[in-house]
Amino acid sequence: MGNRLRDLSGKFSAATRALRPSEVREILALTENRKVLSLAGGLPGPEVFPKEDLARIASRVLEELGDSALQYSPTLGVMPFREAVADFVRSKGVKVLSDDRVAVTTGSQEAIYLLAMTLINPKDAIIVESPTYLAALNVFRYYGAEFVSVPLDENGMKTELLEDKIKEAKSKGLNVKLVYTVATCHNPTGVIMPDDRRKELLEVASKYDLLVIEDDPYSFFVFDEVPFTPLKTLDSEGRVIYLGTFSKILAPGLRLGYMVADRQITRMVELAKQMVDLHSSTLSQYIALYALKEGVVERTIQKARVFYREKRDIMVETLEKYMPEGSHWFKPRGGLFAFIYLPDGVDTSDMLPMAIERGVAYVPGRSFFSDGSGVNAMRINFSYLPPDKLREGIRLIAETAKDYMKSKGK
Amino acid sequence: MGNRLRDLSGKFSAATRALRPSEVREILALTENRKVLSLAGGLPGPEVFPKEDLARIASRVLEELGDSALQYSPTLGVMPFREAVADFVRSKGVKVLSDDRVAVTTGSQEAIYLLAMTLINPKDAIIVESPTYLAALNVFRYYGAEFVSVPLDENGMKTELLEDKIKEAKSKGLNVKLVYTVATCHNPTGVIMPDDRRKELLEVASKYDLLVIEDDPYSFFVFDEVPFTPLKTLDSEGRVIYLGTFSKILAPGLRLGYMVADRQITRMVELAKQMVDLHSSTLSQYIALYALKEGVVERTIQKARVFYREKRDIMVETLEKYMPEGSHWFKPRGGLFAFIYLPDGVDTSDMLPMAIERGVAYVPGRSFFSDGSGVNAMRINFSYLPPDKLREGIRLIAETAKDYMKSKGK
Repeated sequence: MGNRLRDLSGKFSAATRALRPSEVREILALTENRKVLSLAGGLPGPEVFPKEDLARIASRVLEELGDSALQYSPTLGVMPFREAVADFVRSKGVKVLSDDRVAVTTGSQEAIYLLAMTLINPKDAIIVESPTYLAALNVFRYYGAEFVSVPLDENGMKTELLEDKIKEAKSKGLNVKLVYTVATCHNPTGVIMPDDRRKELLEVASKYDLLVIEDDPYSFFVFDEVPFTPLKTLDSEGRVIYLGTFSKILAPGLRLGYMVADRQITRMVELAKQMVDLHSSTLSQYIALYALKEGVVERTIQKARVFYREKRDIMVETLEKYMPEGSHWFKPRGGLFAFIYLPDGVDTSDMLPMAIERGVAYVPGRSFFSDGSGVNAMRINFSYLPPDKLREGIRLIAETAKDYMKSKGK
Repeated sequence: MGNRLRDLSGKFSAATRALRPSEVREILALTENRKVLSLAGGLPGPEVFPKEDLARIASRVLEELGDSALQYSPTLGVMPFREAVADFVRSKGVKVLSDDRVAVTTGSQEAIYLLAMTLINPKDAIIVESPTYLAALNVFRYYGAEFVSVPLDENGMKTELLEDKIKEAKSKGLNVKLVYTVATCHNPTGVIMPDDRRKELLEVASKYDLLVIEDDPYSFFVFDEVPFTPLKTLDSEGRVIYLGTFSKILAPGLRLGYMVADRQITRMVELAKQMVDLHSSTLSQYIALYALKEGVVERTIQKARVFYREKRDIMVETLEKYMPEGSHWFKPRGGLFAFIYLPDGVDTSDMLPMAIERGVAYVPGRSFFSDGSGVNAMRINFSYLPPDKLREGIRLIAETAKDYMKSKGK
């Protein structure tokens, strides 16, 4: 006896070698318990949480429907909630086809995970915007995907490059399988893809028989008048897998996401989810169901849009005032984020400890690219902090950048 | 265009070929919306749900702590909740080592999944009781594990067979990596392993450098005076990974499980969970935290133990009265289940449609074995149905079995 296990590294599966810490989660951990203004996360502003409404709803759900709300529930979700989600997305202009089914997930993160688990083989290639949502990159990479990165401009993914990129990938022997896009209020840049590009994207998807994951957490928060149609609505071929979340339109703490997709896909996701977590919180589903029914979700969206637009404007104004010459960014048309390019020579990963020391955090840009570019970029969030702290945070980032450049002799 | 996707089977990953429907979930789906007495699930009786307490707690948590309870939270769980879980398991005699950490998971199903994901390589061998919990078998099998099945008797796993079984597996070139055991109130048989066997199990684990997963959802529901010590408490080498759940001691609808294990393991599980679902419901964690603090969990356990013992007694009495001659079972010492062997020649999978037709459901025994045995066995649950329905359900199963045997000329 006494054979104390000191080093467990030999016990882990080979697959763990592909596990990388989530940059955002690790920065959040770094800044926890410190007086750091965090512009790193994607957190909603707590001022928009409908606390009183949810307290009332939770209490009622538990008293009147406790036998169901506290019990196990079906893997794809509680049926009336799945129906309410379908009605909700329809009311937002998202077309639900007769062969589509709704799957409720533990945050939309789980939807991305389950899709990667059920769709990706090593050496499958995924078309992504460059930059794109880092957590999706991490999951796809874990399952052995290669990436076809398509640059974006203020109108999102440059779809005119798609075919050449696909041909190039195929010539390297890759199996181009799907497009992952945050077409509306893109993460991290906040740009919106207009319909002509959306149509081009779907034409290419049809020609090359690709699936399309339309990850859509932010389309409720469009600040400028930009017309767009959900890819899911433009698609008549059942190629688009539509993902949404209650994290931004109600509360992240409920941990509820949803997927609307062809039933063959939802069935496979159901089998995978049976293994992963059986089902998502029944109580959360009933609370969100009543929040939908009673208009709480709609009111939260309206309220958040006003707050976030104001903060977006404050952010842009503050960036213009303080950021060092040679910096640039897209003005976010919606969403929760802006992506800032600092002058060449700045390495935002290298600069991060200085920034945290000074009391502010952001996410270095490199994490949002599949190819290691974005060294001089950073993502900042503008939804979480109150206006004065947001101004202060951006000012501190600008100061840090100027000092960093000075220290490097720029 | 018009390239409608009809058959998506070519799109799925190779790994999906190993996805199998969960027998229990599929039977639950079959019996939903039908007047079927289900003895198939592992559902707590709704009469034990502390609805009023949870309504009060949920309302208070949302009003007073809504900013935190509705927000994103750390991947391993909200810190005060992790601490409360550690205190709770300690109060139940579970030793928490200084290098141990608590991880909160989306049900203990997710803990099993994340452990499989981070520990299992194809051709790793896992030692299991025969029979054992079917959902664990499914997950381990998905990750390519082989099984070393150790038979059990009324004192649980026959640990005296362990060394020979391990040697045999090694001689076949397998890498015997861990033991998965439901040592206390075993699923599906309800037996409890005494300490001498537990010590033997840990000695073998030490000698062969194995990890041990102690899956412990049921030890709060011991009906007979059977002394036992948690494996986690008997282990001084950091080999035991302890799993628990709030599903049976508070409410499954919160979807909260927990793992207590060496920090190297919890760290790897954290990285995996970042990808899978970021974190578990923050609201559920705060509700469970206050339910622990205010004694609601303890009262639920006391109440459930009384109800379940009564139902266990009713079940045993009814089984003795009605089951066909030649049937046998272990009297469950605790837990939620009994495992019934019908006379040879009965195929419980074949018989299930007849039973559902007659208005009752159970889980066929084969699913609980890694080697296809258990053809004439079935698991029945006694915690969910009220006493009269439980009697009726068992009577219907017995009648179905007798008719089935008659139809086969037995």
